[in-house]
Amino acid sequence: MVPLHLHPDRLLPADSGTRTVARDLFASVEHLPIVSPHGHTDPAWFAEDRPWTNATELLLAPDHYLYRMLYSQGVSLASLGVADRNGPPATDPREAWRVFASHQKLFRGTPSRIWLDHVLAVVFGIEVALDPDSADLIFDRIGEALATPAFRPRALFERFNIELIATTDGAHERLDHHEAIRQSGWSGRVVTAYRPDAVIDPEHEQFRSALDAFANLTGEDVTSWRGYLAAHRKRRAYFAEMGATSTDHGHPTAATANLSAVDAEALFDRVMRGDVSPADAELFRAQMLTEMAGMSVDDGLVMQIHPGSFRNHNRGLFLSHGRDKGADIPTRTDYVHALKPMLDRFGTSAELSVILFTLDETAYARELAPLAGHYPCLKLGPAWWFHDSPEGMRRFREMTTETAGFYNTVGFNDDTRAFLSIPARHDVSRRIDCGFLARLVAEHRLSMADAQELAVDLTYNLVRQAYRLDQVTPPPAPLAAAAE
Amino acid sequence: MVPLHLHPDRLLPADSGTRTVARDLFASVEHLPIVSPHGHTDPAWFAEDRPWTNATELLLAPDHYLYRMLYSQGVSLASLGVADRNGPPATDPREAWRVFASHQKLFRGTPSRIWLDHVLAVVFGIEVALDPDSADLIFDRIGEALATPAFRPRALFERFNIELIATTDGAHERLDHHEAIRQSGWSGRVVTAYRPDAVIDPEHEQFRSALDAFANLTGEDVTSWRGYLAAHRKRRAYFAEMGATSTDHGHPTAATANLSAVDAEALFDRVMRGDVSPADAELFRAQMLTEMAGMSVDDGLVMQIHPGSFRNHNRGLFLSHGRDKGADIPTRTDYVHALKPMLDRFGTSAELSVILFTLDETAYARELAPLAGHYPCLKLGPAWWFHDSPEGMRRFREMTTETAGFYNTVGFNDDTRAFLSIPARHDVSRRIDCGFLARLVAEHRLSMADAQELAVDLTYNLVRQAYRLDQVTPPPAPLAAAAE
Amino acid sequence: MVPLHLHPDRLLPADSGTRTVARDLFASVEHLPIVSPHGHTDPAWFAEDRPWTNATELLLAPDHYLYRMLYSQGVSLASLGVADRNGPPATDPREAWRVFASHQKLFRGTPSRIWLDHVLAVVFGIEVALDPDSADLIFDRIGEALATPAFRPRALFERFNIELIATTDGAHERLDHHEAIRQSGWSGRVVTAYRPDAVIDPEHEQFRSALDAFANLTGEDVTSWRGYLAAHRKRRAYFAEMGATSTDHGHPTAATANLSAVDAEALFDRVMRGDVSPADAELFRAQMLTEMAGMSVDDGLVMQIHPGSFRNHNRGLFLSHGRDKGADIPTRTDYVHALKPMLDRFGTSAELSVILFTLDETAYARELAPLAGHYPCLKLGPAWWFHDSPEGMRRFREMTTETAGFYNTVGFNDDTRAFLSIPARHDVSRRIDCGFLARLVAEHRLSMADAQELAVDLTYNLVRQAYRLDQVTPPPAPLAAAAE
Repeated sequence: MVPLHLHPDRLLPADSGTRTVARDLFASVEHLPIVSPHGHTDPAWFAEDRPWTNATELLLAPDHYLYRMLYSQGVSLASLGVADRNGPPATDPREAWRVFASHQKLFRGTPSRIWLDHVLAVVFGIEVALDPDSADLIFDRIGEALATPAFRPRALFERFNIELIATTDGAHERLDHHEAIRQSGWSGRVVTAYRPDAVIDPEHEQFRSALDAFANLTGEDVTSWRGYLAAHRKRRAYFAEMGATSTDHGHPTAATANLSAVDAEALFDRVMRGDVSPADAELFRAQMLTEMAGMSVDDGLVMQIHPGSFRNHNRGLFLSHGRDKGADIPTRTDYVHALKPMLDRFGTSAELSVILFTLDETAYARELAPLAGHYPCLKLGPAWWFHDSPEGMRRFREMTTETAGFYNTVGFNDDTRAFLSIPARHDVSRRIDCGFLARLVAEHRLSMADAQELAVDLTYNLVRQAYRLDQVTPPPAPLAAAAE
Repeated sequence: MVPLHLHPDRLLPADSGTRTVARDLFASVEHLPIVSPHGHTDPAWFAEDRPWTNATELLLAPDHYLYRMLYSQGVSLASLGVADRNGPPATDPREAWRVFASHQKLFRGTPSRIWLDHVLAVVFGIEVALDPDSADLIFDRIGEALATPAFRPRALFERFNIELIATTDGAHERLDHHEAIRQSGWSGRVVTAYRPDAVIDPEHEQFRSALDAFANLTGEDVTSWRGYLAAHRKRRAYFAEMGATSTDHGHPTAATANLSAVDAEALFDRVMRGDVSPADAELFRAQMLTEMAGMSVDDGLVMQIHPGSFRNHNRGLFLSHGRDKGADIPTRTDYVHALKPMLDRFGTSAELSVILFTLDETAYARELAPLAGHYPCLKLGPAWWFHDSPEGMRRFREMTTETAGFYNTVGFNDDTRAFLSIPARHDVSRRIDCGFLARLVAEHRLSMADAQELAVDLTYNLVRQAYRLDQVTPPPAPLAAAAE
Repeated sequence: MVPLHLHPDRLLPADSGTRTVARDLFASVEHLPIVSPHGHTDPAWFAEDRPWTNATELLLAPDHYLYRMLYSQGVSLASLGVADRNGPPATDPREAWRVFASHQKLFRGTPSRIWLDHVLAVVFGIEVALDPDSADLIFDRIGEALATPAFRPRALFERFNIELIATTDGAHERLDHHEAIRQSGWSGRVVTAYRPDAVIDPEHEQFRSALDAFANLTGEDVTSWRGYLAAHRKRRAYFAEMGATSTDHGHPTAATANLSAVDAEALFDRVMRGDVSPADAELFRAQMLTEMAGMSVDDGLVMQIHPGSFRNHNRGLFLSHGRDKGADIPTRTDYVHALKPMLDRFGTSAELSVILFTLDETAYARELAPLAGHYPCLKLGPAWWFHDSPEGMRRFREMTTETAGFYNTVGFNDDTRAFLSIPARHDVSRRIDCGFLARLVAEHRLSMADAQELAVDLTYNLVRQAYRLDQVTPPPAPLAAAAE
């Protein structure tokens, strides 16, 4: 079998002088706590603290980063244990793992490989690389570990040194697991974030059922514009009680609108009647971003906008397997014109804070850095999704820093449902940021003292400030020591 | 005169540790056979094996990479021997060569300079750089060489270690030269590729005459939708007999359509009547891409799409000199929406294989890598045309690998009509790929063993698989040795 | 206090071998004269030669690069001394400077920091970095220096070794300061450039008043198409007398049009009547670019096009503070279709020279380099505005050189109203260009001899040729020595 060894200098720049600087910077942030202000872990894990079952069900079958690549090379989703519209297939998990193991070369040069190696080596202490020869051994080792208390969700949360993690929950969803976590007495900080897409997007397949739940949970008449807005306000307040400091909006575009109250209500009425054109659907989503911004001015929830994904692009796969099967493809995304209506209304508000994400890297230098380098209410989220990778993170810093600086960015988001990969993802981000800072130092564009302060800010302080986490949890004692 | 010397480390990364790795990788692929699955060499050269005449007629006058740059600085095309609509000018080839030699500084930092230096140094064994002092000497040396048997097309084909080369021929063109090559007993593998643009694009200046030839060659009534499609099928089958494993489509955009049979036939009828609007022309091209995909599902020809060039942008030059005079300019190109109709119909077919190219690098990370990293039928062609260059190839790998991996790419295309530059172009590609792999190794993102396997795959194996060349020619003995 | 020290290797590549080459190249161009063919300095400075007052009024309050970043982090413009629509605030300049000093970390990694450090260290000889501890000291030192003759505009012009500087003046503006400079007997070469936006853009807030001035200055009936065009010709001729060799056009897009004379006149009449739709306004600007190109064919003025800025994006700030307050945001910009009408009419003219700029870096490799690498009348301006930065300049060279070469570029523009930062900006450009050339040398893609010639061409010769400055001022003796 091939040994698995994580090199201590991995992902740092190859140039020896630059690497030396990067190593020093990384040493100062490597062990800082993980702050995860945006992601998709399941709160049930932390509420119930039940053991996970096996490698396939934990690491492979739910991870569209992995199975999209295998699917692209003709591997069937059924053979990997991925559920279709009829539910999970009868595939033997061990067999699925072997299929995965036999296609490892597809992941060469990808972040998936980096994350998986980290999970195997660091989380499970496995010392051989995954391949057909080691597949069974690794499957067994993971299964054995998962059966032990040390690998239950809460134990890993603590071992990973997670200071805070946010889940993302629908506006129409109960927060029972969050309630349960709070009442459990467990010290882990798990908060929620308000994601109202299903009750805002008339083209969402759950729109009607989500609206029903939204009405039931709030007691509001959500078929009236006034009641619908009141329902949002109620739920936002409840989410804030459950620790939320942010909302999240995943629209096809970044379009915003600034309709008069009369026009907004008329549009809402058309949407409710159900005969909504694509243009009206887009306009309603656009208007609702502005409405959400207005509510953020009032309640202080930080607004995240994640636009630009063409969802469920593969029609055949959507029909057979449903949503979220690795078939979402980025599209060209405009921000300058799209955000103007919202900014015309709330752009000079001192209370508003909007974090912008993109799947279109051409917007970094052209639109996003200039916007964030001017508007007090705008900040840049980190490299997202397909760009949450070493090259993607480098390009993010190279294309945004000169115009927006570092202080209009917000630290790292792991944005993942793959809980075990969270330390790996933060590790990658810290290494790449330190490598970028080291290059600036090596090129005499930044002093070492400034770089050291920045390394800690990019890793720890900015995320806490940008997501207004100070009201949720105070800075820990260890940080003060580490930052000395 | 200034010595001409190709440095053995040319194009490898400057960092010494990284360069050492790159050198090792390159040594293992430098001498692998050349596989050239897509290009524009003239099959007459290999059928007739007649000597070329002189440096200007071979290297300068037909090469729009060279004369576009000279033209951009005010050098007249006539002075370079470039033909206009009245045919070749009366320019003395030696005088044209002197003009070219006196403007060499324009090519500093360009791939044209790299290719030319390689042709001079390696193909002709010339030891001085081209400049006004050496122009006559080099012109004479090339002329003398071309008069010898060792510089005839077939001899150079063998010396270049070309395992297979594909030409590109119109759907309406006879393949007499390909027939002649087959019947000649010569062992060189020269195949064709099916390029039906002239009979598909109603805005092509040869559309009507090409349709006439298309009808004559197939005996079909190409003025009926049924007959037109049957003619395509017949010619595809004949091209496959002549070794074709692929088709090629050079449309202004990547648009596809998925019309009903009735609507497609009505559109075809409008096109045939000749009163075709730009929108109808675009829709017909779009529908025909989908029809071609359907035929590929049946006959197994790999489909190449080369979209996004605004042809003949310079109106004055087009009027005086005609097509293909270095005045084609790339445009912004969408793939996500454009390809959806075709993918809705054939996107989950296991038989279909489509290779996508682009002149719009912004699509690499945003659209093409996500599409190829998901759809089994989609693969990424290498950096094309203006991007077939050291920086262009680097950006291609940096922006596609993390999402699509290496195995959804297809190796290198030289895509050239400049036969003597083919070894130079493959040399550049191999060096840049090895440099990229070396950086991943130096940054501990890839093991050396994986990099070694990848270097051979990127150079030799992927192109054979992606273009389904195994039915044309078996892997040679030398490779097995080299890959050990 | 923290020492301020400009490292001699700043901005050069970190790799030691490459840096050695870069150092050699930079040494040969570091002290070449500054040629500044496009910028926004105030000609009154050189006409009147009055002392500047203090650090805030000279360096901070007029510099939107600086205050946009501070504003983005919630610092009020009033606290920085920035004027609003009622004029400058009553802010104490020293207090404003302290506010600026206390936010220096925002500028880490930005070009603003590089320029400011250079101004402090080189222009003023200050040896401590700006921070709250040093703010008063530095404010005082600058104030004292500015009161001395050595820091008056003309003295600094000479000390900076400026061979020529161009200001930008409106078509409707008198050139009294330029007249005064000429009559003063001072040897400094200060020329103008013809910027007719205010009399061409019907949506410009000064359109009507600028037209009135335009009529008064020319004695033409500018309400007739014929008179309007004649007024342009007259003023262009006068600007040329005042040393202008170029025009400058800052339109929202790069659109050009090629209307018939009748249609152009009808459009002009609609514009003059004042009921102009946005589409008509855009068409008029487009047609006027083509008219300006025609006049350039006649009078030889080089045409600069600076498109793609969405001006005054922040509505609230525009209402309170007016134009040019750091709220201009780049937009996606097309060139291939936009420029075609103008190129159809004048694209093959040997007299026309158009320099293209962009705020949309995606156009570099896709559109601009192919256009400039073909059309004799097109050249590429340097990295502009948000991209006038180390990373931006590197990307410019990496994305344009392989297709357009170096000789279709035009050297550096500082494009600034911050006079004291001009040496800093040229220093950055020279360092980055030398670093880029050094990488090509280190990768054996360029000989050292070629790199040395290129370093001088990029710094000094290309700008003189591209802006046709030879008629304004002959090459100085020192260059001949330096280039040996």
